[in-house]
Amino acid sequence: MTHNYAAILQDISDAIHQTDFTDARKVDYIPALASVPDDHFAMVLRTADGNELAIGEADLPFSIQSISKVFALVLAQRAHGDDLWKAVRREPSGSAFNSLIQLEQEHGIPRNPFINAGAIRVADLIASRYANPDRSVAEFLGQLCGNPGIRVDNDVYLSEDQHGDRNRAIAYLMKSFGKLDNPVEDVVRAYFKQCSVAMTAREMARAAFFLANKGVGIDDRTVIAPGETSRINALMLTCGMYDGVGDFAFTVGIPAKSGVGGGIIGVIPGEFSVCVWSPRLDARGNSAAGIKALEMLIRAIGRSVF
Amino acid sequence: MTHNYAAILQDISDAIHQTDFTDARKVDYIPALASVPDDHFAMVLRTADGNELAIGEADLPFSIQSISKVFALVLAQRAHGDDLWKAVRREPSGSAFNSLIQLEQEHGIPRNPFINAGAIRVADLIASRYANPDRSVAEFLGQLCGNPGIRVDNDVYLSEDQHGDRNRAIAYLMKSFGKLDNPVEDVVRAYFKQCSVAMTAREMARAAFFLANKGVGIDDRTVIAPGETSRINALMLTCGMYDGVGDFAFTVGIPAKSGVGGGIIGVIPGEFSVCVWSPRLDARGNSAAGIKALEMLIRAIGRSVF
Amino acid sequence: MTHNYAAILQDISDAIHQTDFTDARKVDYIPALASVPDDHFAMVLRTADGNELAIGEADLPFSIQSISKVFALVLAQRAHGDDLWKAVRREPSGSAFNSLIQLEQEHGIPRNPFINAGAIRVADLIASRYANPDRSVAEFLGQLCGNPGIRVDNDVYLSEDQHGDRNRAIAYLMKSFGKLDNPVEDVVRAYFKQCSVAMTAREMARAAFFLANKGVGIDDRTVIAPGETSRINALMLTCGMYDGVGDFAFTVGIPAKSGVGGGIIGVIPGEFSVCVWSPRLDARGNSAAGIKALEMLIRAIGRSVF
Amino acid sequence: MTHNYAAILQDISDAIHQTDFTDARKVDYIPALASVPDDHFAMVLRTADGNELAIGEADLPFSIQSISKVFALVLAQRAHGDDLWKAVRREPSGSAFNSLIQLEQEHGIPRNPFINAGAIRVADLIASRYANPDRSVAEFLGQLCGNPGIRVDNDVYLSEDQHGDRNRAIAYLMKSFGKLDNPVEDVVRAYFKQCSVAMTAREMARAAFFLANKGVGIDDRTVIAPGETSRINALMLTCGMYDGVGDFAFTVGIPAKSGVGGGIIGVIPGEFSVCVWSPRLDARGNSAAGIKALEMLIRAIGRSVF
Repeated sequence: MTHNYAAILQDISDAIHQTDFTDARKVDYIPALASVPDDHFAMVLRTADGNELAIGEADLPFSIQSISKVFALVLAQRAHGDDLWKAVRREPSGSAFNSLIQLEQEHGIPRNPFINAGAIRVADLIASRYANPDRSVAEFLGQLCGNPGIRVDNDVYLSEDQHGDRNRAIAYLMKSFGKLDNPVEDVVRAYFKQCSVAMTAREMARAAFFLANKGVGIDDRTVIAPGETSRINALMLTCGMYDGVGDFAFTVGIPAKSGVGGGIIGVIPGEFSVCVWSPRLDARGNSAAGIKALEMLIRAIGRSVF
Repeated sequence: MTHNYAAILQDISDAIHQTDFTDARKVDYIPALASVPDDHFAMVLRTADGNELAIGEADLPFSIQSISKVFALVLAQRAHGDDLWKAVRREPSGSAFNSLIQLEQEHGIPRNPFINAGAIRVADLIASRYANPDRSVAEFLGQLCGNPGIRVDNDVYLSEDQHGDRNRAIAYLMKSFGKLDNPVEDVVRAYFKQCSVAMTAREMARAAFFLANKGVGIDDRTVIAPGETSRINALMLTCGMYDGVGDFAFTVGIPAKSGVGGGIIGVIPGEFSVCVWSPRLDARGNSAAGIKALEMLIRAIGRSVF
Repeated sequence: MTHNYAAILQDISDAIHQTDFTDARKVDYIPALASVPDDHFAMVLRTADGNELAIGEADLPFSIQSISKVFALVLAQRAHGDDLWKAVRREPSGSAFNSLIQLEQEHGIPRNPFINAGAIRVADLIASRYANPDRSVAEFLGQLCGNPGIRVDNDVYLSEDQHGDRNRAIAYLMKSFGKLDNPVEDVVRAYFKQCSVAMTAREMARAAFFLANKGVGIDDRTVIAPGETSRINALMLTCGMYDGVGDFAFTVGIPAKSGVGGGIIGVIPGEFSVCVWSPRLDARGNSAAGIKALEMLIRAIGRSVF
Repeated sequence: MTHNYAAILQDISDAIHQTDFTDARKVDYIPALASVPDDHFAMVLRTADGNELAIGEADLPFSIQSISKVFALVLAQRAHGDDLWKAVRREPSGSAFNSLIQLEQEHGIPRNPFINAGAIRVADLIASRYANPDRSVAEFLGQLCGNPGIRVDNDVYLSEDQHGDRNRAIAYLMKSFGKLDNPVEDVVRAYFKQCSVAMTAREMARAAFFLANKGVGIDDRTVIAPGETSRINALMLTCGMYDGVGDFAFTVGIPAKSGVGGGIIGVIPGEFSVCVWSPRLDARGNSAAGIKALEMLIRAIGRSVF
């Protein structure tokens, strides 16, 4: 371990707790998330040589939301191989994550697997191959982080379902183009469930570890081949941070994926995986404290992937 | 030098010459480029420890076109610092490089400095600060590659000027939003001139070297600070390959910038800069043989930035 | 009766039967409509002074499809008055009748009641006020044309329902903006049913008569006030012919509404109502023979509303 | 004369002067128009049987702006016949009058002759056939209204020219698609000049008279054939009132064309032409008092074209 990560995390935590994030707001369309205290902050870093460093509420579960899209993608890629890329493209969208405009102009083929349309299509591909699509992403995350108890938070799921009309519109639009294989309600249910998985920052840093470790997980088993790992990382860098991908690459410069529950996972391949969590979101839907923490981390160690 | 780059380049060159690129076409709107033989291919790699390896027509000048945008950006950043980013954003555009739609919707502020609107705005910022904006990019490239004879190709410039109405429309649209400081004709002339610079693949690999070398050029002088170098690399990765950024990051995975003259520059920070040139373009305007050559290089050495 | 309408209709019918419409195609997404013979043609004109002239298959029922939108609008206006226009605008859309792009950009408020989004919202408004929304448009049409036996064609309805995912996407998108009051499935069912009503050209000319007769129907009862009748006519002229409103106003120049079943109703206020039917459609979804017939009619009588 | 138009105009004028239009604003991008008093109001009506009724500042010149587009269209149609409609379409645009988005998507072919792109293309067609394109619209208007002294207001023209970058962007975009025949600067100069013509409401009602009189002008000479007159009227109804065409057809219901100088011309074919002028504009760029006056007129006489 070349850096004193423990000291770095402590500095970051101190700085975050002294910063005013009152302009940033928790996601408001999921009532079940409203009760999370605003100022919670957790950061967990797992180095390629096996050390794990944590600070803050590292063992408190949060709603992983869109972070689940990375792991659903890996599941779909395992089942479908490169045929997956006939169903979903891999270009930045340049527009809001839940927009139907681009989807209509491009005849129902999503730009990438991390916008909602793409993630719904990935859930559809999973539903075609896995026995219990409502649970498969949760179970996969359980294996990756070494906690078979990972579950869908049912209150969050019910909120998602109730506020899910935009996602149903997206799914029906794909269906109308002949680009969805399973019934819309089955697909969106599986999608809402994967978004509603609850995990801790520690579990998340562990689950994402294979992306920093050439495809090998915390249990030394291969999740995907090294080449495929690089490709997932490339996708996170170009498409993982909603409408803020360019700014995040510019100011932080590592592959990362955020969720509106306030979590962000990131990696420097060969170095570490990291999960940061704090519920208040900036205008683009990314954790405000999370982005600041990752910026500080990158500056402290003096390197990014660039 | 950990890899036998000479052997790798030879393998790549052999493979390229055995591949059928007849579906790919040279750019057709610049008559002055029509006379370049279709099957020319050059690749030059300059390692961080100072070795230079070349194959093919490495000393034949070609039209650098949009590759110039990287160097114009560096010039503008030197003069304006971070104020530059008030004038141009740094997000992938998600649409064609010469589109006016997004520019109108976003009130004349370009998405990033590598789409035409952004590059025209950068040329405008250069015109506000440099004495001879028509020559400043060419002179800067001459310094970087160690050849003060770098010049604008006047035939190419005249072609650009004659076919430049789309770019004039973009410039007038920005002007109408109050987002262009200098007269439209002055700005587009400087822009057409920078695109018309002629350089060899060898000169290009040298000029781009500082991006792989923490901001230090081939003459050991600092071009920009290491942190700013990372940021330019991030921009190339998220915005450098026209509508193919996502696919290129996915399949190759290095910061790169292409031009419709058939050149591509790329870097792996800390390892090498590379320039590949072959005039036939794929449907997105990137050199078809160039992309294949970079893919082979990345596969041969077993690493990208991801 | 100032014109010899009988002779005019005969001339039109002769000309239509001598014209080659093989480039025009019947609607293909509703299998139940595939069995209608291609060369059927009917035209029925009902003058303000009470004469009725018919030619061709005037007593053969066809699927009224989007023509139903005019009558649904009248029903909704009766129940909601001018509050209706808080829910739906009345501007030409400038884009395809089933597009979601504009609907998303305008936050779920449809441009006008004749694009699908607007008609679905009108069906929603009807569902909020009428006891049997699945039947109310059919029953209203039965009253207007004097045939209480007007029914929904169930085969057509089932086809609509099966191919209705685009309309469901539209409805869910409005729902996600909080712009739909009733459950999506209830609304789209009522909408599909109103589109699936079967009527003859004679019945249609009678049902539309009040639009030519200051709001008074064939039974001398007032349907809506004269001022409201003018407004419905204005809407038909600016929004009634899919993407061909401008061309139709330019070349024919009367308020009209078409359906993909091949029917078109039209009026010259104070003069006559007309229904023409022929199943082959031009590229914009309007009956090819129907438009030609109306053009000939307008030329023969030497007047339009302009 | 079936109506007491003099009394009607007096009632309208009284009502207008008692209405608060302080929310409506004069156009602000043409400084030369800023000195016009806010509360000026004029209305001139010329009946088919030759009577002329005027109220208010009927003999004070104002800037005709986009009203000129109707007359330029007639000139172009005279020179090019129906070939004109290969260059310009005739569909409502559904978007802002000066937008480039639709123009780019539709490859440089304007939606209709009354949006700026279409009017610029019409000016281009005029420039190809008339000897003095900078003056031809003004001279034509002089003939039509019987005042050969009609001129371009040079101060307004200079303002237009200075604030004309958006129109230059539109012209260059068409040029880049090969859809403009003459040099951009020549075309926009002619276009700015036609918009800068100054006329009184009385002159305007006279100039527009042929549109209400089957193509025959105030001097009993035929301007265009009756059929072509109907077509111009149809275009005004579907495209003449910027983004408010649908609302205007719905609430007023006559062919009309507005300009940002506060003028509106309208006709009921066979009945009268009318010009109303008042400089304050509503949010869509139409004269606020002008629209209210036309609504009152239509209500008072109990008829529109619908």
